[in-house]
This record gives sequence, C-alpha cells and structure tokens, in this order.
Amino acid sequence: MLDLLLRNARAENRSLSLLRSLCDDVGPRFPCTAGDVAAVAWAKEAMREAGLSNVRAEKAPATLWERGVESCMLRLPRLQPTVLSALGGSVGTPEQGLEAPVVMFTSLAELDAAPAELVSGRIVYLHHVMPRLRDGTGYNGGSVVRMSGPSRAAKKGAIACLVRSIGTDSMRAPHTGALFYEPDSPMIPAAALSTPDGDLLARALLAGKEVVSTLKLGCKPLPVGESANVIGELVGSERPEEVVLIGAHLDSWDLGTGALDDGAGCAIAIQVGRLLAALPQRPRRTVRIALFANEELGTGGGLAYASAYAKDAATHIAAFEADQGDGAPWALRLPAGNRESPLGVRLYQALAPLGLELDAGTSRGGVDIAPLRQLGVPFVDLRQDATRYFDFHHTANDLFENVSPEDLARVTEAFALTAHVIANAEERFIPATL
Amino acid sequence: MLDLLLRNARAENRSLSLLRSLCDDVGPRFPCTAGDVAAVAWAKEAMREAGLSNVRAEKAPATLWERGVESCMLRLPRLQPTVLSALGGSVGTPEQGLEAPVVMFTSLAELDAAPAELVSGRIVYLHHVMPRLRDGTGYNGGSVVRMSGPSRAAKKGAIACLVRSIGTDSMRAPHTGALFYEPDSPMIPAAALSTPDGDLLARALLAGKEVVSTLKLGCKPLPVGESANVIGELVGSERPEEVVLIGAHLDSWDLGTGALDDGAGCAIAIQVGRLLAALPQRPRRTVRIALFANEELGTGGGLAYASAYAKDAATHIAAFEADQGDGAPWALRLPAGNRESPLGVRLYQALAPLGLELDAGTSRGGVDIAPLRQLGVPFVDLRQDATRYFDFHHTANDLFENVSPEDLARVTEAFALTAHVIANAEERFIPATL
Repeated sequence: MLDLLLRNARAENRSLSLLRSLCDDVGPRFPCTAGDVAAVAWAKEAMREAGLSNVRAEKAPATLWERGVESCMLRLPRLQPTVLSALGGSVGTPEQGLEAPVVMFTSLAELDAAPAELVSGRIVYLHHVMPRLRDGTGYNGGSVVRMSGPSRAAKKGAIACLVRSIGTDSMRAPHTGALFYEPDSPMIPAAALSTPDGDLLARALLAGKEVVSTLKLGCKPLPVGESANVIGELVGSERPEEVVLIGAHLDSWDLGTGALDDGAGCAIAIQVGRLLAALPQRPRRTVRIALFANEELGTGGGLAYASAYAKDAATHIAAFEADQGDGAPWALRLPAGNRESPLGVRLYQALAPLGLELDAGTSRGGVDIAPLRQLGVPFVDLRQDATRYFDFHHTANDLFENVSPEDLARVTEAFALTAHVIANAEERFIPATL
Repeated sequence: MLDLLLRNARAENRSLSLLRSLCDDVGPRFPCTAGDVAAVAWAKEAMREAGLSNVRAEKAPATLWERGVESCMLRLPRLQPTVLSALGGSVGTPEQGLEAPVVMFTSLAELDAAPAELVSGRIVYLHHVMPRLRDGTGYNGGSVVRMSGPSRAAKKGAIACLVRSIGTDSMRAPHTGALFYEPDSPMIPAAALSTPDGDLLARALLAGKEVVSTLKLGCKPLPVGESANVIGELVGSERPEEVVLIGAHLDSWDLGTGALDDGAGCAIAIQVGRLLAALPQRPRRTVRIALFANEELGTGGGLAYASAYAKDAATHIAAFEADQGDGAPWALRLPAGNRESPLGVRLYQALAPLGLELDAGTSRGGVDIAPLRQLGVPFVDLRQDATRYFDFHHTANDLFENVSPEDLARVTEAFALTAHVIANAEERFIPATL
C-alpha cells in the first residue's frame, strides 16, 4: 500500500498546483483581512475537492494590526534611504516621524550591559547576523533579538528599535515578524532593516561615524478580531475516534504571498489528505488536517484548537506539522523513547528509502501544535532542509516563484508516508515516562 | 614583470576596498544628483591616491530625470500590490494615476501584429522572459523590449506600458533602465514590474482573466544638465603620446548603490592604475583611466570623450572597458585579424594562465567607448561571466553585499595584465582591413 501511495504521489505534483492556486487566487492572508477570509473559503473548497469529510471552519481569535507607511533615512552622513518593515505588533512613530542618533549593539547581552545614558533618547540598532544552517536553528537566536529587543531597548530609554532582518539573504527585502512588548516597558516603534541596509549602517558605525536616522512608521495595533481554523478529515475505517493530526497554518505575512510560510505546508497537508483518500482502503484511524489561523501574530489558531480539543487529547495518536516551506526532508525525529519502539521502527523503515536519517533528538512539534504537548499528544518531526528558507521567510520574496517543485514533491511524499503508517499501525507511540 | 604585477595584485584586494568606499561613502550616483557630484570628487581623490597623474574632470552633458512615487495595483480580480520601477526617461502618469485593462504580448513582433483596437486605451504588458546565459547576451533581446516597447505600444493607442523586468532573478526587485521614445509616437508612461509580479500577471491573463491595473508614476524628464568624465593617467616612459584607454562608468542608477554596475568597473580601472604605478618601471605607453559620466541615460560621457579626443584617435593604441560587474573573466576577444598577430598572441599568452579562452569573434567594446570605433580605435574585450550579473543589474539589490570578492580580484588581474602587455609591447594591433 505504501508503494501505491508513493506511486500516486509521484504521478502528479498536486501540492504545487494547490500552492499556486493559494498564492495566485488568494495571495497574502494576514489575519482579519479580505485575504484571510478568502483563504478560509479556499481551504474549505480545496479540502472538499481532495475528498475530505467534516470540513469546517472553527472560530479562532486573531490579532489585528495595520502596517501603513514605512521609511527610514540614514545620515551616514550621506543620505541613504533604506528598505525596512515594521515588526508585527509594533506601535507607530508620531505622524511626522522621529529623528535621533543611532547606537548599535551586536547582541541583547551587550544592550543589557550598556549604561542607560548611552541608549537614552537614541534609536537602538541590533546587529545580529543570523547564520545559514541546514536545520534552520539560526532562527532561534535571531527571533529572540526581534521579539525581545524593542522592550529591552525601551527599558534603557531608547525611542525606537531597529533590528537587522532575521534572515540569511543579502537582498533589499526586509524580514518582518512579531515582536513581544514586555508589560513593564514603554512600547516603542520597531522595524527590521533589510540585511544589506543593516550591514551598511554597521560599517558606518564601526568606522566611528555618528549616524542619525529618521524613522516613520504608520503601523498600529488594533482590537482583537476573529479568524478561523479550517479542518477536514478522512474518517478512520476501524478506529474513527483515534486521530492523526497534520497541521499547517493558513495565515501569512502581508509582504509576500506566503508561498513558503506556510502555503507550502497547507498544500502538503491537503495533498496528503487527497493521496490517502485515493487509496483503495481508508486508513484505520482518522487523519485530520488542520490549517491553523493566525500563527504569525499570537498563534491564536493553535491555542484555540488545543482548548477546543483538550478533552480528546488522549485519542490524538500523533500530531505533526508542516511549517518549514518546501525544504526537502532529511531526518525523522520521534517522541522520547520511541526510536526502538515498534511504531518508531516501522515509521523509520517507511521513510528511510526517501533518504531520511533517524535523528537522535526528541520531537518538538511546530508552533501551532505546541500547545498539545502538555496534553500528552506525541509529536513527530519531519525535519526539512532550511538552507534557503530564511532567504525568503517573512519577506516580499516569499512567493510561488521561489518554491522548488522537486523539494515540495519530496516533502509531500514524506508526510504522506508518515500519516499512512501511523494511521494504520497496530501500535501507538510509547508514552513518555517523565 | 608580469609575475610581479600578478603577485602585487594578489597581495591585497584593493579593488574591493575601493568599491566598498564608493558604495558606502558615495552611494547611488545618478547624473546631476548630489551623489554624482560626490562621485566625481571621490574618483579624483582615488586616482591621485593610486598614483595617477593629470587627474581631471572633463565636462559631459547629462540627462536629468526624476523618479517620484511609483505604484501599481493589479485587480486579478483580487487586489495585488506590485513592486515596479519607472523606466529611465519615462514621463509620469496624471497625478491621480490611471486605470485600464491590461493586454499582454510576449514579444514586440506580437505587439506589432496586434490590431489597434485590442491595444487602444489599454495598458500594454510585455512579457519577455530574459534567459540566464553566461555571456549575458540574453540582455540584448531584453533591452530592446524595454527601450522600444513603450513607443511601439503607444503607436497602437496604449495609454501606458509595463514590461517584465529585464533580469534573471525571481525577487521583488524591479530592474529599471532607459527607454527610448520614438519621435513619431506619443510619450506614454512606462515601468518595469518585478519578475515575479510579471509572472503572476501573466498567469492570470493566460488563464483568461480580465485584469485591470491602476498605475501611478511620479517621474518626469527634466532639462539636460551637466556631469563630468573623470580621467587620470600613468604617463608613458617612452611613448607618452600613445594611449591605452581603460574605461568604466561612474554614474549608476538610483535604486541600489551601483556596486556591480559599474562601481566594480571603476574600482577595477583605478586599481589597475595603482598596480601599474607601483611597478619599478612605468609602462612605455600612457595608460589612461576614464570613468565616464551618464552611461545609463544617454551615454553622454562616452560621446563627450570621443568628441574631445577625436583628433587623437590614431594614438589610441587600444581601448577596453570594465562594465560587466564582478564577473570572472573567461575569454579574450581581439580586434579583427589579430588572433595571430604578434600583439594578439602576446596578449593571449599572458592571459591564458588565468584560464581565459581565446574567443573566435571580433571585439566590440562597451557602451562608453563604442563611439571610438568609427575613429578606428582597436578594442579588446575581456569577456566576463555574466551568469549572476542580471540578478542585480539596475535593481535595488545592486549592492556591495552582492559582489564576489574572489571574482572581482580575478577580473582585476586580467585587466592589469592586459593593460601592461599592450602598454609595453613593441607591436600595435594590426589595423582592420575593411
């Protein structure tokens, strides 16, 4: 049956056509915009067309935020207009903008250690250079700078915060992303400079120049709104109450069309549903596809799902998530204690022919399914090659044109095999012994 | 002596530091802007510092043009804001913008063959996909579309013209570039869409959708102004009146910092002067470095040089130009009849150890030195690898960060050897027999 599944998967790259449709016909789908509404309708239709049942949209809270104008001129002393994006959730500047000298730090620790008089009244620039790593873990350290930097700069009296984009490209394409305002700090405007603009600024400051920047951001947080998780199922033939959950997120940032983040995941998940539905025998357990709302700015969708389904946690046999774009799969990571369990072994045997390694670590899940961890749901990680992912992630270049059809096909195969094996196995994962 | 020259060239990559200084300290240098003025001062200083003599700025006419606001929203029917750049020299739209259905053609021939009623009152979109080729010749066909498309669309009654960017990338980074208004056509506003925006539009139109676009361009041509060619020399020790000319252009488009086009060429040319000046013996002939003004929008600098030095054409032993960015050199192309001439053989023997092939074709020169052809000046082409060049050319990503230090060093070496051989050879190139 796995052979037939693979053969069908390879006959036609429908993940790609699904993704093109999402990017072209829906486009950007920031929570509570017209694109978000269109995306929910698109997902329901795509799931029905794929042969899924119980297709529904389930309400989820969503953060509202508006971007508005964005400009930042550096006086190096020569004038250099830069390309930047406000961080998601940021407050704006006064309408006429603001102007101040820039002070640079290369880490949060360096900022924390600085005397307040060095920072007070200035614009803080955080020059953190994200490394390009296959497993994408360079993002972990980077996103902390973006999330926490603005409040930590504000604590020292900064009037605004710029970060070097958390990304690995060298394009004039800033990487947006959420920030987190700490409750005890003033909320100051914050934005990401494109990486080459950040590097230019760093070179000037390292050369000892006094750099003054003007900054105008028209963004503003708005009251909380509402979006929806879109869910569809292939009801199990023998144990319909037992669920194998495949997650992805339907929302995207506003700058690109969310092709890699996370249109690819949505396309993969729906296509896995279609491939399983097309087999002569339905899986024994229920396979549930959940496309979560508002991952990017508050993870409202994942939290709403965990809250609504907490009572069914014990019947969630496994959960896994596609939220690393089109990256080819390179490793399987299992729940603790399962590398030699019958289901762990069976799953790895199915995936090894696709070239996956067995990872020595413990599965962690993605952001949307993370709230299910404390409910005891076992996660499976299909680790995807993230070498190129952070060239595009959260930028205007997160577009269909920057997707690799071959890699998208390969990761779809791995997700399909994973879902099929877990949904049909006699065994379950061995629970973690805490 | 060639060995010493190469050793010195490899001791320190000063082309790179020159280029960084031009990009960081001067930045964009569109003709008749403050950046242009700063570039002229920078070039004079850099030439003097490199040990050149007779450093001077010679007046050259320059085209004035202002960019202004730029926006284009596609109704696919869903709304998609696009990223675009007005073409250099374009007139603007009315201040409130314009709005019309879009009609697509995939070539100028297809546009020329179309009935006027299909085009009249519409926005023409020219979907020409430039191929990625090592020798960069994909640009030839592409630039014709950009230069001539607007007037040819206007002849059929189009109210504006969009072209798919003449470039090989897939980024939201439109490629600007000059257009040419034919005298007998109405002047209509014209702009380049980023390649992925163009592809999105093409997919919608090919799917049979009616696409309406709004377009707002604030650009405007202005009266002709003035800039300057910057010239410096290493005066020949034996035949000072005989000149080996190395050209590059000092101006750049406004969007990036002109690192590849043509900051790289300026850095290479100045560094070649420095390397020759540092040798124990000065070249026998004069080596003249000319950084031309306003190549991008009218080639005013090259024309002014040819006009001013027409009387000295016979003493221009050879001219060559660096205007293909940081591309590593892969072939030598000689004046007709010189592949087996003593100087041709001597020059190729010097360059072969750098991995250069001997090209079977005839040298053509670059845009700036082209007017010297009809005066009988022999050209030498050092063909550079253009595989990546058109990912950045004329875009906001034409930045120092996108330069390869290794390739820049290699092309500097090839230019230095070429200048040294020609300036010291007993022979001259054999004149073309017409």
